Formats: sequence, structure tokens, C-alpha cells
Amino acid sequence: MTYSQKFFNSANESNPEGELAVNILVGNIIEIATAHANMLGIGNPAMAHLGAGWVLSRLTIEMTRYPKCNTSYVLKTWVENWNRHFSTRDFSVEDEAGNILGYARSVWMVLDMTTHDNFGLAHLSLPDESVCGEPCPIAPQAKHTEILPYLTSESNANPKALKANVPDAEYTFKYNDIDFYRHVNTVRYITILLNRYSLEEFDRNFVNRLELSFLHEGSFGDTVSILRHNSSPLDSAFSLVSHKTGRPVIFARLTLAPR
Amino acid sequence: MTYSQKFFNSANESNPEGELAVNILVGNIIEIATAHANMLGIGNPAMAHLGAGWVLSRLTIEMTRYPKCNTSYVLKTWVENWNRHFSTRDFSVEDEAGNILGYARSVWMVLDMTTHDNFGLAHLSLPDESVCGEPCPIAPQAKHTEILPYLTSESNANPKALKANVPDAEYTFKYNDIDFYRHVNTVRYITILLNRYSLEEFDRNFVNRLELSFLHEGSFGDTVSILRHNSSPLDSAFSLVSHKTGRPVIFARLTLAPR
Repeated sequence: MTYSQKFFNSANESNPEGELAVNILVGNIIEIATAHANMLGIGNPAMAHLGAGWVLSRLTIEMTRYPKCNTSYVLKTWVENWNRHFSTRDFSVEDEAGNILGYARSVWMVLDMTTHDNFGLAHLSLPDESVCGEPCPIAPQAKHTEILPYLTSESNANPKALKANVPDAEYTFKYNDIDFYRHVNTVRYITILLNRYSLEEFDRNFVNRLELSFLHEGSFGDTVSILRHNSSPLDSAFSLVSHKTGRPVIFARLTLAPR
Repeated sequence: MTYSQKFFNSANESNPEGELAVNILVGNIIEIATAHANMLGIGNPAMAHLGAGWVLSRLTIEMTRYPKCNTSYVLKTWVENWNRHFSTRDFSVEDEAGNILGYARSVWMVLDMTTHDNFGLAHLSLPDESVCGEPCPIAPQAKHTEILPYLTSESNANPKALKANVPDAEYTFKYNDIDFYRHVNTVRYITILLNRYSLEEFDRNFVNRLELSFLHEGSFGDTVSILRHNSSPLDSAFSLVSHKTGRPVIFARLTLAPR
């Protein structure tokens, strides 16, 4: 049981290379997931009285091409699996001619909006026939790894961790980064990550694969260190570590491919 | 001749106060304008061979309320007027029950994407009956004013200019700020402006009116001074002035109203 929606890629939603911008793709992935969940009766409106709502736990996107500016594209979504704690939802992206441009896999949990704990999915019922066996043909997300700051001394380093090999940057979460859950929004994390690259890098390369793990919530006014380990010029791992708590907020990997 | 589209306001697109976020509203205003122009045969796809495309010159939004999270809303748009240089397009925002929540007025021009000059509208033909006489019942946008930096000495000040009464801030345009035209995107300017406020300010107040004048294009890597003059705690004028050219990129006014 899949759900589809057609989108038009306008100049406003295109990147400087004339393709659908990654942040807009992620926004539309979340919108179509929301629309499908609402249609199945398991969306946020169905549990507003419980003070709980769906949040992303993990997101993996793998694209071989992006829709061009002034063309339409179709997003399809289906529920891959469902248990008491998490639900996995997949997506495909097709161009106007029906060619597959890429896939996405997302893992969702329900957040208790008062305690900000995992509320669980036990209060929601999803008929078995709503779960589609179709797998998502992209590699599973790799386990997230600790990234140590650029200036960590070797002696107190976790030997299994990556070590930042690019000087650390900083970012402070601002008003427009925060959404309904009063935490930093997924699309805004994508923005922060894309902004670590230059125009010239994206003129030469496109985002082939993006992995995002949400580890702890980021909140208004928090400053994070942006730790980055490049395993090659095209492969970067990122960890955003909160100054207030010392804990990572997200772990991400971005793999670029030459155009 | 109006064109309407229904939207759902998800948690992902809501602000921390549980309403449609202003940046998302502006994005959807641009999307419905694009869809209507394409339908009338005067959109970017109709002039892609000319290397030209529509860009916003001015935008005014006035809202008495915003759609709540998990509700639908309807945007309507119509062409108010049309001449060889500019076209004015208006919008209304309605809630699920058909109550008017607010209006927007936008002025568009066509940009030559090679020279970045005004290409004009003479090559596009719009039947007279497509122009709707219906005016937009919000006040016209005020003329933009120079804002002088916070530390300007009185002696060399333009006497007609506003003087920043809040210390200047700075922002450098990054990759994700830049769109298809390779200049800073309207929605990203809204983000930069909203980020000058605290969560607490928007918990107490909402954006009642927003005026935006696009004066010169902002480009990747440009740093701007954010000059701000508060005429009251709820009324701010902003000018973003490029360090490279010394010229203002945008002029904006934001009027908040208590919730």
C-alpha cells in the first residue's frame, strides 16, 4: 500500500545548480509521510489529545540524480515495518518519465511532548495490510560513531572514535531552527550541514547519499560544535555536539559524487 | 480569475507556537504564484529558452492569525495589475472554515539570468481577462529608507535616514541561502530576519505585518551588516548592507502584535 504525490520543482526550490534542493526534498519527504500517516489514521491529529507526535529518529537518502528546475517529480511512500517502538517508512523519487532518481528510508518514533521521552507506538493500531513488504534498495545506515574534536590530545581519545581532521566550527540554534516540538527541525539540520560546503564544491559534486541520526534534541539558544571527519574529499562524517550537555545532537554522513 | 490551493500545516512546518511558520507561508505563496503563472502560460517554463525568470521585487504580508498545527488552510492568488516592467499579484489566506486570516501583495519582475538586469514583461502576453480588478485590502508598502549603522557619527549622517538603535549584527550568505538564480532566496531572507528575535519574543507576539523590498542581489560568500532600527518594541526596520558593495541588499519592516 503506497501513497504518491506529484510535486513541481520551481526556481524558488532549486539549488544554484538548477536541481531540487536537498532541504526541499527532505521537507517534502516529511510532508508526504505526514499525509500518508494522517490518511491511515495514525498521524498526529489522531493523537493530539495524548500530547504526543511523530518525530524522525533516522533518515537515509540516496539519489543518483535530482529533478531539474521546472520539471515535476513524484514521491512515493510506504510503511516497511512497524513495531511497538519504531516504524520504518520508505520513499522513492521518480522523474516525469517514471525513472527512479533515488530512494529514502526513515525511522520514526512517537515523542511525548511533555516529557520529551519515547511515547511508543502501542496506542496506535495499524492494520497488517498497511505494512508493505517492499524493501528499500539502499544500504542500511551505518552505526553512528563518536567524533573527537580537532584538538583532542591522543592520550585521552576513545580509540574507536573518528578524530575531526578539519578545524571545528560552531553554530547557535536560532528561532527559525525550532519547530512545533520546540526542538531543532530536521530540515534546518540539513541546512546547517549543506552550509559547511562551498558553492564551488556543489557546482562540481552532488549529494549522492545522506545519513542522519537524531541522538538528542537541540533547543533554542544551544551552541553546538560542528565536528567533521573527512575520510576522503567526497566523504564526510559530522557530529554536532552541544556545549551545554556535552552530548551529540546529531550524527550525519554526506557522500558526494562528481557531476 | 483566482487560483486556489489547499495546504496542510504539519508539525514540521509549524513554529514553536504551534502555528504555520512565516518562512513556510512565504514559500507556499511563491509556490502558488509559480503554479498560477505556469497555468496562465506566463511562467518560467514558457521563457526558459530566453534565459529569464520571475523574481520578487517586493512582498507585503499582513496576518491577523496564522493556521494552527494539524489544520488545513487555503491560499488564493490573483493578478492585480500588469505592465511592461512589473506585475502585482495578491494572495489571501483562509482557514478551514473559510475565515480570512490575512493577505499578501507581491510585485514581480523578470530577471535576465545572464546579465541579472530587468528583462521586462514585453515578451509575455497576458489576456486582459486574466487581470483581476480585486484589490488587496492591506496598506501599500511604505517607501524604503536608509538605515545608518549604530556607530555612525551625527556629522556625516543623512538627515532623512533612520539610525540603527540596536548594535549591528553580521551574516555571511552560505550555500543553502542561494537558489536557482544564484542569488539569495526570499525564504532565506525571512529566516535571517526571524532569527534576529528570541523564542520568548515570539511566544508573546506574532508577526502581524512584514514588508520586504529586494534592492540588490545577495550572493554566495557576501557578508552583510544587519542594521536595525526599532521605532517601538514591536516595530523594527532592517537593512542588510553588503560589505563588498556598500549597498543595501534588502530593506524590511516587521510589525509584531501581542498574542
